[in-house]
Amino acid sequence: MVRNSLGRLLPETFNGRPVLPYADPFSLRLERDHASRPLRRVNPGQSKLLGSLREAVEASGLKDGMTIATHHHLRNGDVLLGQVVREIDALGIRDIRIASSSVHPVHAELIPYIEKGVISAFECGVNGPIGEQASKGELKCPIIVRTHGGRARSIISGEVQVDVAFIAAPTCDEYGNMNGAFGPSACGSLGYAHTDALYAKCVVAVTDNLVPYPAAPISIPQTLIDYVVPVETLGDPKKIVSTTTRITRDPVGLQIAHYAAQVIEASGHLKDGFSFQTGSGGISLAVADNVRRMMREQKVKGSFGCGGITGYFVDMLEEGLFQALFDVQCFDLKAVESIGRNPGHMEISADMYANPFNAGAVVNRLDCVILGATEVDVNFNVNVNTESTGYLLHNTGGHSDTAAGAKLAIIVAPSIRGRLPIVRDELTTVTTPGETVDVVVTERGIAVNEKHVELKRELERRKVPVRDIRQLQEEIYNVTGRPRPLEFEDEVVALIEYRDGSIIDAVRKVKE
Amino acid sequence: MVRNSLGRLLPETFNGRPVLPYADPFSLRLERDHASRPLRRVNPGQSKLLGSLREAVEASGLKDGMTIATHHHLRNGDVLLGQVVREIDALGIRDIRIASSSVHPVHAELIPYIEKGVISAFECGVNGPIGEQASKGELKCPIIVRTHGGRARSIISGEVQVDVAFIAAPTCDEYGNMNGAFGPSACGSLGYAHTDALYAKCVVAVTDNLVPYPAAPISIPQTLIDYVVPVETLGDPKKIVSTTTRITRDPVGLQIAHYAAQVIEASGHLKDGFSFQTGSGGISLAVADNVRRMMREQKVKGSFGCGGITGYFVDMLEEGLFQALFDVQCFDLKAVESIGRNPGHMEISADMYANPFNAGAVVNRLDCVILGATEVDVNFNVNVNTESTGYLLHNTGGHSDTAAGAKLAIIVAPSIRGRLPIVRDELTTVTTPGETVDVVVTERGIAVNEKHVELKRELERRKVPVRDIRQLQEEIYNVTGRPRPLEFEDEVVALIEYRDGSIIDAVRKVKE
Repeated sequence: MVRNSLGRLLPETFNGRPVLPYADPFSLRLERDHASRPLRRVNPGQSKLLGSLREAVEASGLKDGMTIATHHHLRNGDVLLGQVVREIDALGIRDIRIASSSVHPVHAELIPYIEKGVISAFECGVNGPIGEQASKGELKCPIIVRTHGGRARSIISGEVQVDVAFIAAPTCDEYGNMNGAFGPSACGSLGYAHTDALYAKCVVAVTDNLVPYPAAPISIPQTLIDYVVPVETLGDPKKIVSTTTRITRDPVGLQIAHYAAQVIEASGHLKDGFSFQTGSGGISLAVADNVRRMMREQKVKGSFGCGGITGYFVDMLEEGLFQALFDVQCFDLKAVESIGRNPGHMEISADMYANPFNAGAVVNRLDCVILGATEVDVNFNVNVNTESTGYLLHNTGGHSDTAAGAKLAIIVAPSIRGRLPIVRDELTTVTTPGETVDVVVTERGIAVNEKHVELKRELERRKVPVRDIRQLQEEIYNVTGRPRPLEFEDEVVALIEYRDGSIIDAVRKVKE
Repeated sequence: MVRNSLGRLLPETFNGRPVLPYADPFSLRLERDHASRPLRRVNPGQSKLLGSLREAVEASGLKDGMTIATHHHLRNGDVLLGQVVREIDALGIRDIRIASSSVHPVHAELIPYIEKGVISAFECGVNGPIGEQASKGELKCPIIVRTHGGRARSIISGEVQVDVAFIAAPTCDEYGNMNGAFGPSACGSLGYAHTDALYAKCVVAVTDNLVPYPAAPISIPQTLIDYVVPVETLGDPKKIVSTTTRITRDPVGLQIAHYAAQVIEASGHLKDGFSFQTGSGGISLAVADNVRRMMREQKVKGSFGCGGITGYFVDMLEEGLFQALFDVQCFDLKAVESIGRNPGHMEISADMYANPFNAGAVVNRLDCVILGATEVDVNFNVNVNTESTGYLLHNTGGHSDTAAGAKLAIIVAPSIRGRLPIVRDELTTVTTPGETVDVVVTERGIAVNEKHVELKRELERRKVPVRDIRQLQEEIYNVTGRPRPLEFEDEVVALIEYRDGSIIDAVRKVKE
C-alpha cells in the first residue's frame, strides 16, 4: 500500500498493472511516443460492407483477452455495446476489456456477461448499477475510472490499446465517412469516438442510416474505418438526448446560481474574450442564464462556450455572445440540430477538449467552468464519483480536466443533500484535487480557495457572503450533525485515475 | 543497377538509401506501423507565440542533417520556404533536407543555398529551375519526386521523418488553430499540411492574419501546433491562386475535350453517383464543360468532384450536379471563397485524397479522371515529369494516384506538341504505369487500353475515331518524323517514386 500526495491509500498494483500515485496536477510528463498501429492498404473496388455485427466481430479478429471500445454519445439510449457483447459471447470469446468512453445505466444489461467471464474489466468509468454492484463486491470486474481527457490520453499514449472500436455512426456511407449530426439516432458531436478511430487496431462503423457516398459533413473519415455494418437501429432516440434540460426553479438552486454569477463578475474574467463551460444541470443552466444577462448588459463579446453543449449555449452563440462553441458532446436536441448548421459550432475530439498530453487542449483556454460535486472537503478536493453510500455511481466526465484548465473552477452545490452535508472533513473518494478548484458556492455562502486573495477581497467588498470553508462546514454541520464515517473493506474495486494517468484515489468495497 | 517491371534502369541505392524497384500498382504492402512522435504537454497559461521565424527555428531545435517541410498551397506566391531557409542559413545550420509538398519556380531562390550546402536534398518533386539545373548536373542535390498520396504515405509510414514543419497559415489564432479560407493570403484548403501537422516532431504555424482565439473554422487544430509566429506576409496573393483558369478556345483542345466527353458517356459511368476529377488546364475545363452539359441534359445527380478544385466545380456543386467536393487544394479564388461557405465543399488531407496505405483514399472512389501528359508510350505509360529536353521540370501531383484509383483514367493531350509526337516508343521518364491508364485522347483519335474491350466496341459503335495506339503513333510520326532519342549520362539526379514507395523510374543527367 502507498499514499499519494493527498494522503489517499492506494494499492501498489491493480489488475496486474503498477499504480502511479498522484502527485500534483501539472508536473507529470510522459517520455514516450504516441501509440501506433499497422498501416493498412485498401485498393479500389474493395468493399467494407458487412452483413451483421457477428460478421464484424469475426472480421475484426477479436480474441480472448482483447479490448473493445464504443462511445457514449447515445447515452442511455445506446443499444450497440450490449449487442456487441452478446455477439462476442455467442462466438465464445472471453476475458474482454471494455474501454468505452463511458457506460450508462442501460448497460446494466452487461452484468450477466461480467458474471459469465465475457467481460473481465472496465478501462473506463461507469454510471449506475455496474459500479454499485462492484462496490458491494457482487461483481469481480476491476474498473479504472478516467476523465474525458484522461481516456483520450490513455489511448493516445498506448496505456490502453483498443483492439476493436465499434463506432455508432448516426449517418455513414458505405466507405465509412460518418457524422452524428443527421439520422434517426442523431447525437450531434462524435467527439469521444475520434481517438478510437485514430488508434484502435480495427475500426468498425455501425450505422442505422447508410447514405450514398459521400456522407457530409465528415466527422470521422473513411481512411480510418475498416468495416461498415448497417443495423436496424443504434438506439432509442428519446433516450439519446435529453430534451428537458431546464433552468432550475428551486429557490436554493437559484440562490446558488445567483452567487456563482456574482463570483464570475467579481473575478474580472467577464470581459471581451470570456470563455465559459457549464454542465446541463438545472443550477448550471441558471448560472448560464445569469451570465448571459450580464454579458448582454455589459456588452461582453465572449470567445467560446465549451464542453457538453446545450441549447442554451446555442442561443448564446446565435445571439453573438460567443464567437464559437467547442462541442465534444451534445446534451440536447437543440445542440444536435445546431451542430449540423452553425459554422461556429465546432465538433472537437476528447483529445482536443481535454487531453493533458498534447500541444494544448481547449480546457487550457477556459476562463470559467461551473462544476458539481457530491462532496467537497476543507481543502477544496471534490468527489463526483461515489455517493455518500460509498457506491461508485458516476463517471468523472470532464470534471478534473476543466478544473485543471480553467482560470476559475466554481463548484456549485446545495449545502445539504439528502440530509448530508456537502462539505466534509474527509471525502469518500477524491475525484478532483483542491489545488485546481477555486470557489465553492452553496446557498449558505461562498468559500474561496486561499490562493485567490484578491477575489475573496472583491467578493467581500461586493457584500457577497464569503465564508472560510471550515466555517461553512461548521454551519452546515450545525444543521446536519457530523456525518457518520462509512466503513470499507480493504478490497479495491476501482481506481480513480487523474487526467495525467496517475491515481488520485481507490474505491473500496463497502462494508455492509 | 536493376530493372523494374517496366524495364526502367534504376540504381540500387540513391542518396544512401536502398531503391525498391516498382513491380505493379496494387500489391505492395508495408508490414509496418504508422510513424509516431513524442507526446507533448502544454499546461494552461503557456504561450506559443514567438517573435520571429529566427526564434522559431531556434525553438524547434533544428540541427544539421534534419528535415523540414512546408506546403505548396501558396504556390508561386509563397515566400515562407525561402525565408525559413535564409534563417536556417543565418543560424549556420547545414545539410537540411526539404520535404515540402512541392516546390515551385519561385523557389529558384533556394539555388544559392543548395550550392552553399544549406540544402542537401529534396524529398519531394520540384517544378521549374531546380529540376532543370539538377538535370544539367549543375546542382548536387538528390531529388525524390513523390505523388501527392505518396508524399503523405512517406511521412505516415516514417520513411520520411519531418523534424520541423513550417505551416503557412492564412488565418491562425495564438494557440495554433488555423484555416486557409480567410485572410490576405487565403488559399482555401490546407490539405497538404495536415500530414505534416500530425507527424512532424515540431510544428510551427506561421501567419499573416492572427485572429482572436478561436479561429473558425479549424482545419488544423491547436493540439498539433507547438509555436505560432506572426509575420508581415506569407506571400503574394496574386500569385497564390490563379484567377485565369478558363476553358480553352483552341480548336484542337476543344476537339480533344469533345472526344473525351464522348469516352465518358460511352463508358457508362455518367449516371447517378458519378464522380469526377479534372485539373485546371484549359482542355480539362473544356471536358468538364461538356460533362456538365451532359449531366444537365441527362439529369445525372453526381456524387463528388475531387482534387484540386476550380470555380467550375464549385458551380457544378451549387447547381446540384455534385453532392460534395473533396478539396485537397483550391485552384482558383472562386474555390477559395466557396470552401469557407459551402458545407458540401469539404477540405481533405492528401492522406485522405490519395495515400494508398490507409483504409481507403478518395481516389479509390473516382469514376473518371482527366489527366495530362508530356509523353505517352504504346503501353499507355505516361510521363509528366520531364520534358522532351530530358529536364525534370514538373512534379507528379496526383497523376499516378488518381490514375490508380479511378475506374476510367483518361489522358488528354494534343498529338503534337512543339513539333514533337505525344505517343512515343519509349518515354523519357515513366511517371504513371500504363496498367492504370485507360484511354488516351488526342485530336487525331482515341486509343483505348486493351483491357477495355467493351468500351472500345461502344466507342466504335458511336463512330468515335478509335485507333490502335500504334496506329495513332504511326499517324503522328508521319507528320513529325521519328523523334531523335535523347542522350543521358549514367548519373542519376532524381528518382520518380510511385505512390506505394517503389521506384518507377530514375532521371539522369542530360548529355549536353
